[in-house]
Amino acid sequence: MNEAEKLATLFEKFPGIGPRQARRFVYFLLKSGNEYRANLEQAVHDLTQNIHQCKDCQRYYASNGNNVCGLCDNTSRTSSQLLIIEKDADLDSIEKSEAYSGKYFVLGSGVKLTDDSGKVPRQAQLLSQIANQQELTEIIIAMPTTTEGEHTAQTLINTIRPLTDERNITITMLGRGLSTGAELEYADSATLKSALESRN
Amino acid sequence: MNEAEKLATLFEKFPGIGPRQARRFVYFLLKSGNEYRANLEQAVHDLTQNIHQCKDCQRYYASNGNNVCGLCDNTSRTSSQLLIIEKDADLDSIEKSEAYSGKYFVLGSGVKLTDDSGKVPRQAQLLSQIANQQELTEIIIAMPTTTEGEHTAQTLINTIRPLTDERNITITMLGRGLSTGAELEYADSATLKSALESRN
Amino acid sequence: MNEAEKLATLFEKFPGIGPRQARRFVYFLLKSGNEYRANLEQAVHDLTQNIHQCKDCQRYYASNGNNVCGLCDNTSRTSSQLLIIEKDADLDSIEKSEAYSGKYFVLGSGVKLTDDSGKVPRQAQLLSQIANQQELTEIIIAMPTTTEGEHTAQTLINTIRPLTDERNITITMLGRGLSTGAELEYADSATLKSALESRN
Amino acid sequence: MNEAEKLATLFEKFPGIGPRQARRFVYFLLKSGNEYRANLEQAVHDLTQNIHQCKDCQRYYASNGNNVCGLCDNTSRTSSQLLIIEKDADLDSIEKSEAYSGKYFVLGSGVKLTDDSGKVPRQAQLLSQIANQQELTEIIIAMPTTTEGEHTAQTLINTIRPLTDERNITITMLGRGLSTGAELEYADSATLKSALESRN
Repeated sequence: MNEAEKLATLFEKFPGIGPRQARRFVYFLLKSGNEYRANLEQAVHDLTQNIHQCKDCQRYYASNGNNVCGLCDNTSRTSSQLLIIEKDADLDSIEKSEAYSGKYFVLGSGVKLTDDSGKVPRQAQLLSQIANQQELTEIIIAMPTTTEGEHTAQTLINTIRPLTDERNITITMLGRGLSTGAELEYADSATLKSALESRN
Repeated sequence: MNEAEKLATLFEKFPGIGPRQARRFVYFLLKSGNEYRANLEQAVHDLTQNIHQCKDCQRYYASNGNNVCGLCDNTSRTSSQLLIIEKDADLDSIEKSEAYSGKYFVLGSGVKLTDDSGKVPRQAQLLSQIANQQELTEIIIAMPTTTEGEHTAQTLINTIRPLTDERNITITMLGRGLSTGAELEYADSATLKSALESRN
Repeated sequence: MNEAEKLATLFEKFPGIGPRQARRFVYFLLKSGNEYRANLEQAVHDLTQNIHQCKDCQRYYASNGNNVCGLCDNTSRTSSQLLIIEKDADLDSIEKSEAYSGKYFVLGSGVKLTDDSGKVPRQAQLLSQIANQQELTEIIIAMPTTTEGEHTAQTLINTIRPLTDERNITITMLGRGLSTGAELEYADSATLKSALESRN
Repeated sequence: MNEAEKLATLFEKFPGIGPRQARRFVYFLLKSGNEYRANLEQAVHDLTQNIHQCKDCQRYYASNGNNVCGLCDNTSRTSSQLLIIEKDADLDSIEKSEAYSGKYFVLGSGVKLTDDSGKVPRQAQLLSQIANQQELTEIIIAMPTTTEGEHTAQTLINTIRPLTDERNITITMLGRGLSTGAELEYADSATLKSALESRN
């Protein structure tokens, strides 16, 4: 296997990238000049050198020093709320909405439908984060509204209920309803039902 | 223009049907046998004979006799609620959700963004319907969550506000939030903001 | 089942039309006015009255009188060529290309891959058409380039070979190669192989 | 701009990759472990170290030593044929078809429709390659069958004609026709015309 093939094999592991596009990436690099390639090599190197997993919210972030991420470290964010999400990328979407200013916790992945162990990923870290966040009054469960997402949410609720009952913490879920751009004609019944129930 | 071409021209008017599919419909009819064609002809004829526009909710329906549709005529549905929708097809979606048991009103179309006349389609019939529905306590505005839908909703609210203020009728809108199957990573900011606001 | 539902059920049989679009067609008709509906009813009626299956090429066509279609009846088209196609719609495509001026024969459907009877649809009519076309020097087999199309082509060749050998008629197939708009990068190997073989 | 953002910016330059997917690549790398990241970094480094542009066919390839690529260096490939393609990726497709065993020349890009300079990319290298290939009897022009591809092909022909006329070299183009999986009903007229002309 030559250099180009080795690189294509690595690109094939990228999310959503098949063998054909992996090869196109290599062609692109072959043509793109020494400076671009050197920058890419350096950026991958720098990322590796600077990756930390936040000991609080558990997300991966790249920065020099510190073992808590910028969001967890930000004292202007309220610690009365904790929003639990599945993936690092979900956090970006919520930050972009500018509608939340509390703390986060990233599970890393959902609970598979076939997994009825009753455990959630990073469970010890989650329980410890809840224990440390002493002013906590609300935990927001922000899972995808898929069957797996609902299974994860239910497993989460069962896991944290003893703690939240004891400390009188409210558990909430993201509201269901019509998303932006929705047409009633094409909306499914569950969405319309939620939209009617949460009318305001 | 022969018979096949005439028919293709009529099929081209069907929603979502272009010249190519219109011709495929004609080919299909050419091959489909006398009985099917006779049934189709009869069904179009019967529809024409039996179309009524409900004098209350304004939707089109096919039935023999009566000048009020089955939903408006159904005394087990509450007349304390009136749900206003844009299109006949929206009504089917809501009925299928089994989450609503009040009355309907169909505008027939939205208010175009360029139309700032302040009027809604079928305005006289709507005001008369509100006047007739004496037990009314809530009007639910169920427009699409598009820019045009929001313009229609706003025009509607301006139109009915004097009446609703006077009679103490609440105006509500369908809840916004995550629709079924949504992934946070791909949700837009407006949807996430609504979902956070309507968390429960 | 009321008139609207009856009509929706009939529209569901149209090619490519599911239950939802069938209902949209009915909504469209409900709103579209008496004149349009009367025209549609009449056009379906007229089609039924005037459908003929051409006794030569076997295609369906709509016209008054005559039992041979306009193409078969057209003496300016050469009867030294016979082009065999699968469906009525294929004929339109070839006529539109203006690259063929011989006779046609429509099989009506392909030979399923699971059908190894060795027979083609309308076999008797095809053999009779070949027998009647005394000046025939070439039979062009114009099947889709799919696995089923190739099976149909092979079955056809086996069926007509005795006749064509006896009368010294050439059998040809449509040329394979790059279709309009093709990019080499995305072309499959079979297509590139054909394109290289038929380079000119 | 931190390390993650720098890397995302570089990934955005990859063909077909927008800002969202670029960020997903970074998330993927954040999670993917030190070993994978080190391999990726090394592979980009090795590619840079070993990139050569073949002095004959002009394609980019990665290998140690040598200034002619493996295909040009392969004496079992005939030098009586030269196939001219637009992009490095086209070469892979043709090699995969196993239908060609001559030499290649890669233009690197097409001639834009707005470019009527009459010049093709890498023109000097192409003419020199033709001059060096003394046993040449055929030049195969393998451009995409798009409007730009046809413009490139025409410009190429005008460019090489003096040489090919003098040396009695045949110029050919890839055959046009039905590509694999084509249905006649959906084929365009130009494709059907070619398919009829190249029937065999």
